[in-house]
Amino acid sequence: MSPRFAYSDLVALSEAVLVKAGLPAEPAASVAAGLVEADLLGHTTHGLALLADYVEELDNGTMERKGWPDVVADHGAVATWDARRLPGVWTTRLAVEEATRRAAMYGLGAIAVRRSHHIACLAAFLEAPARAGMLVLIYSSDPSDAHVAPFGGLTPVMTPNPIAAGIPAEPDPILIDVSTSITTAAMCGRVGAAGGRLAGAWIKDSHGNTTDDPAAFKAGGSILPIGGLDHGHKGYGLSLMVEAMTQGLGGYGRADAPREWGAGVLVLALSPAAFGGLDGFTRQTGWLAEACRASRVPEGAPRVRLPGEAALGRKRQALAHGVVLHDGIAEHLSWLAARFALPALVPLAD
Amino acid sequence: MSPRFAYSDLVALSEAVLVKAGLPAEPAASVAAGLVEADLLGHTTHGLALLADYVEELDNGTMERKGWPDVVADHGAVATWDARRLPGVWTTRLAVEEATRRAAMYGLGAIAVRRSHHIACLAAFLEAPARAGMLVLIYSSDPSDAHVAPFGGLTPVMTPNPIAAGIPAEPDPILIDVSTSITTAAMCGRVGAAGGRLAGAWIKDSHGNTTDDPAAFKAGGSILPIGGLDHGHKGYGLSLMVEAMTQGLGGYGRADAPREWGAGVLVLALSPAAFGGLDGFTRQTGWLAEACRASRVPEGAPRVRLPGEAALGRKRQALAHGVVLHDGIAEHLSWLAARFALPALVPLAD
Repeated sequence: MSPRFAYSDLVALSEAVLVKAGLPAEPAASVAAGLVEADLLGHTTHGLALLADYVEELDNGTMERKGWPDVVADHGAVATWDARRLPGVWTTRLAVEEATRRAAMYGLGAIAVRRSHHIACLAAFLEAPARAGMLVLIYSSDPSDAHVAPFGGLTPVMTPNPIAAGIPAEPDPILIDVSTSITTAAMCGRVGAAGGRLAGAWIKDSHGNTTDDPAAFKAGGSILPIGGLDHGHKGYGLSLMVEAMTQGLGGYGRADAPREWGAGVLVLALSPAAFGGLDGFTRQTGWLAEACRASRVPEGAPRVRLPGEAALGRKRQALAHGVVLHDGIAEHLSWLAARFALPALVPLAD
Repeated sequence: MSPRFAYSDLVALSEAVLVKAGLPAEPAASVAAGLVEADLLGHTTHGLALLADYVEELDNGTMERKGWPDVVADHGAVATWDARRLPGVWTTRLAVEEATRRAAMYGLGAIAVRRSHHIACLAAFLEAPARAGMLVLIYSSDPSDAHVAPFGGLTPVMTPNPIAAGIPAEPDPILIDVSTSITTAAMCGRVGAAGGRLAGAWIKDSHGNTTDDPAAFKAGGSILPIGGLDHGHKGYGLSLMVEAMTQGLGGYGRADAPREWGAGVLVLALSPAAFGGLDGFTRQTGWLAEACRASRVPEGAPRVRLPGEAALGRKRQALAHGVVLHDGIAEHLSWLAARFALPALVPLAD
């Protein structure tokens, strides 16, 4: 049986590592909680797997340690921040809090964040505001990198550009977190390192042929937008929309040729209470969720799930019985604990 | 050579038809201009092809003739309207105007519209605000119908649920208008009536097998979400998001079991000037558009296009040299002109 770890032990160790690496207490606590939340939800490429990378960025000075985001513009229901490469998991949480505060006042609110550092797992920000009755959307792109070619083209121009939405519903919120490309560079890296193949022909090689070989991506290929060769103009359009809503509204992006790992981010919060009412909202989303769950399926197939349903189930399980980490992550944490002379992580007794 | 018609003749005839069918002058003019705009842009299933259907709805009393949308809620930057089944092309234009007015004041604005009638072509609303420097998004769903099954299921629950965005850029805006399903009921109907096959296996039949036969959709099948069987959980998630943003925020939808053709709509306007500045915005979108156009393509393949680029080219061409209508539409218009004793449409001289 895989070792299981206590949620609070994982957060405490990660927080202590980040403090030792030079972060003040508040961002360290926020980043630690955000990364562990991703592992709880099963987004294991975007959780504690990133902690060693974040420490390296702090070591290199490419992740800023001190201070707060600068306010570039502030106008009614919206603001634009320069995050100055402070930890993105923390600044995104601040942006969610500020956008929801403005949504409570104006019906909706938005914070555009330029020069964010990496923001990890978008779904990890959504459960709390959704349970508090707020519809929060997060859009993200990385102007320092290019993995996805425009439909019909071969030159990568965009990143996987996710769209996430936390939708209030009973008994649990619907948590959507989808990249506008079929897969991500992180997944290609993980599968490639294990010598495997992707679950579909999601890469276009440098000649325009599709393949499931993740190595073709590094060798001058690109990740296909959702819809692939068949209807990838849709993923391409959605990906352009995310670029405009993040780098466009933030006023900083590819045109500035940034070279360091980071993100442009838009957080948009809408308050159902200010529209047709929160009860009216959850009446519709509850009906919809039930209709999806009740959908007929082919004989022998599992019932239909809602986005986030499996993730929230995993989280409940992990909080009750301990967190099982993806291969290699516990070793990473041991290495970080040893480096900073912190007590080693102890698995829960079986 | 196909007959060509003057833009102004098409708008004048359509407007006169709608007035004869009982609409006041303002909604008649707005609907006529909106439908012809769709044909100019090449969205021929969602333009004048709908005029006879709209007249039928006016005849039946299922499209409301008189008055204005009721304001259900009004709170800061957002409002919720009950369109009372007034013509959706008109009420959506009103919602775009009101959302952009609020965005100019608060940085962003949103109008949720319940009990809208059909809104036709979403892209047709976007060029004018984008040229005026406003980023406008439109989301739409039809709670009276179900064509798209949730990922893994067989029972249709959702409609094609489009997302549209008009993005300010130089020299022309980027106009995105994509359904979150691979194709639409209108396209299945058109291809099926012509005895043809879809361009891909975009239908799931009642047993869960995919097919390009549009007849399988009517025979208990469903339209696949974008991503299909391979990665359709992404289209499914985006489609649920559109349901929540339209019927959820509007507080009226499937839970109310409406039976008449219509829509739930959300119009969201964001003012780049209130974020990082309009110049900063178009600097990023211009760079992005140029990078997409410059993308390397396979030998002999056409260069990459931006969404809306071909449509705006068609529109320029049609305004300069006349509008070529899709098969059958001129006959529809002749029939409507005859019914209402209006002068027949005369093609332009070659």
